[in-house]
Amino acid sequence: MRVIGIAALGTEAPEGLAAKARRMVNVLAEKCGGDFVLALGGYWGLMRVIVDEAIRRGIKVMLFPPIERESDYFPEEALVVKTGMGYRGRSVALVKTADILIAVGGEAGTIMEIVTAYLEGKPIFVLGGTGLSTDKMRVYEPHIDSRRFAELRFFESVEELASSVCSVVSTMKHRESF
Amino acid sequence: MRVIGIAALGTEAPEGLAAKARRMVNVLAEKCGGDFVLALGGYWGLMRVIVDEAIRRGIKVMLFPPIERESDYFPEEALVVKTGMGYRGRSVALVKTADILIAVGGEAGTIMEIVTAYLEGKPIFVLGGTGLSTDKMRVYEPHIDSRRFAELRFFESVEELASSVCSVVSTMKHRESF
Amino acid sequence: MRVIGIAALGTEAPEGLAAKARRMVNVLAEKCGGDFVLALGGYWGLMRVIVDEAIRRGIKVMLFPPIERESDYFPEEALVVKTGMGYRGRSVALVKTADILIAVGGEAGTIMEIVTAYLEGKPIFVLGGTGLSTDKMRVYEPHIDSRRFAELRFFESVEELASSVCSVVSTMKHRESF
Amino acid sequence: MRVIGIAALGTEAPEGLAAKARRMVNVLAEKCGGDFVLALGGYWGLMRVIVDEAIRRGIKVMLFPPIERESDYFPEEALVVKTGMGYRGRSVALVKTADILIAVGGEAGTIMEIVTAYLEGKPIFVLGGTGLSTDKMRVYEPHIDSRRFAELRFFESVEELASSVCSVVSTMKHRESF
Repeated sequence: MRVIGIAALGTEAPEGLAAKARRMVNVLAEKCGGDFVLALGGYWGLMRVIVDEAIRRGIKVMLFPPIERESDYFPEEALVVKTGMGYRGRSVALVKTADILIAVGGEAGTIMEIVTAYLEGKPIFVLGGTGLSTDKMRVYEPHIDSRRFAELRFFESVEELASSVCSVVSTMKHRESF
Repeated sequence: MRVIGIAALGTEAPEGLAAKARRMVNVLAEKCGGDFVLALGGYWGLMRVIVDEAIRRGIKVMLFPPIERESDYFPEEALVVKTGMGYRGRSVALVKTADILIAVGGEAGTIMEIVTAYLEGKPIFVLGGTGLSTDKMRVYEPHIDSRRFAELRFFESVEELASSVCSVVSTMKHRESF
Repeated sequence: MRVIGIAALGTEAPEGLAAKARRMVNVLAEKCGGDFVLALGGYWGLMRVIVDEAIRRGIKVMLFPPIERESDYFPEEALVVKTGMGYRGRSVALVKTADILIAVGGEAGTIMEIVTAYLEGKPIFVLGGTGLSTDKMRVYEPHIDSRRFAELRFFESVEELASSVCSVVSTMKHRESF
Repeated sequence: MRVIGIAALGTEAPEGLAAKARRMVNVLAEKCGGDFVLALGGYWGLMRVIVDEAIRRGIKVMLFPPIERESDYFPEEALVVKTGMGYRGRSVALVKTADILIAVGGEAGTIMEIVTAYLEGKPIFVLGGTGLSTDKMRVYEPHIDSRRFAELRFFESVEELASSVCSVVSTMKHRESF
């Protein structure tokens, strides 16, 4: 099963970003087909907005809370993976489990997940123009280093970002049917 | 969503045990209701028998392969969690993610998962009389130490084991709807 | 550098056991030579008694606290490894880092470390007759399963246990000078 | 005991960089006092150059190899921590264990360690002008995001970098004697 990882703010999203995130989930629901799971790092801040919208749209959701928050409340529909690791380690597990990574704007935690995804060879789709720290990662587009492990692409439009993600995901589906 | 962890041999099962494991999956399918996931540590040995039967019966399956085998072939229906940890660490993540643990007989790896489950407060259901090393864990029934973190129960019949698991799982469902 | 892992109670030791643990450290100091490190899981309960005695005797100490207690006070002389994992995961790292494991009696956490050590091929030396849960692991002496990954030996005398550990450690020193 | 983490290339260093790394180790040996440990991620590439020079100067060394390379040869003087995690997870453990992080120029792996250090509140000292990908992280100087968890500073001179590290380390020593 394809896993789309989503790196997003663990805090309240700046105005407008939550709405964009919801629109993104809707495009994923319409264009990615039914056979995928969204993986996120918890159920708070902007991540919660995305999880709620995904569940409303019937998308499967998998959460990787850090050990410090494993006992939080999570919606009954979500599959909660308890890695036994803190914030950083669980981010590694989330990114490794994902086939591709969407970064809906974020701070250092999101940057760490972007770089980890690159190192693990996962294509990365970043929403730009958010006013958050991830915007500056544009200096690393399209490859973080000379080894070209994966492509890092920035999008100004969430709709375009989500459509591109679905194109790539559908390709993966075929590639793995060996 | 409820997660039933299954600790099972990573090697070929002794005669009879594979058949018992298949019967167990069928009882789980009939008595546990639809809203649960089976979590296993890989797709080889006795684990593979269980995964195949679960998929055949339409049960959701989540796999926690160790980092050394993350690139193995896994069935398209399975959700593969890549923790980035080796055999031991991924066993910890599997057990922590599970709400209860079934041990279908096994060797030291299964014993390690049983003791980990106890430490994490997960009820443990062990199939006895397998001729494997887990049989001797009976000296620790019903509590591994004086702290009584969880109950360790042995069963001679897989049918009875699976039925008991489903009773406990249905209780959990209600408890968590808070 | 050789690493001797020590699994010990995280709680106050029963009468007599603390004294035995101190005597054990002194035998290690006298018979193991200077070039080794003791690795423990924290600085509380019986572990603290052992750490304090080791530091008093000038033995190097490395601690693997779980993430929940990484900010505790630790003695300046100790090297504190912060794995970013909880109790179970840090136990895996401790055991893997050790060349051999001593279990000075303990509860389920110690049993988990013993089984992990076996799986990782580390010789295990257990102090018996402690009245704690590890005593019952005797049913698994000398090999936890049929694969014989490592030897599990019980000792009634701490002095004998520590002497045997030093014999094995000195052998390792030579073996690795390749 | 203070731990100075060093993020460095796992591959052969470009001309000049190895010499700079050796000079850095010598300044640390002269100015940091005896009571610290260097932590690195392995014993290959530029890391090996640094480890060899540190051992030659009598500096204590701790290595965090990824699980894939735990069985490599390591010098007898080094303390080898086996976390049981892959490249990314062991980087998290290395950075968390360190009190401060030096990045001697590197690629995406080093960037990941820099961002992780920031998130864990560890001061970061980066050697600039290396021609490697870490150079571009300058867009994030002095703070990777608005939360100011730690300071990120670039240096053109290794000597100045190492001196600054020693100043900060000596401060830590006093701060922690509570």
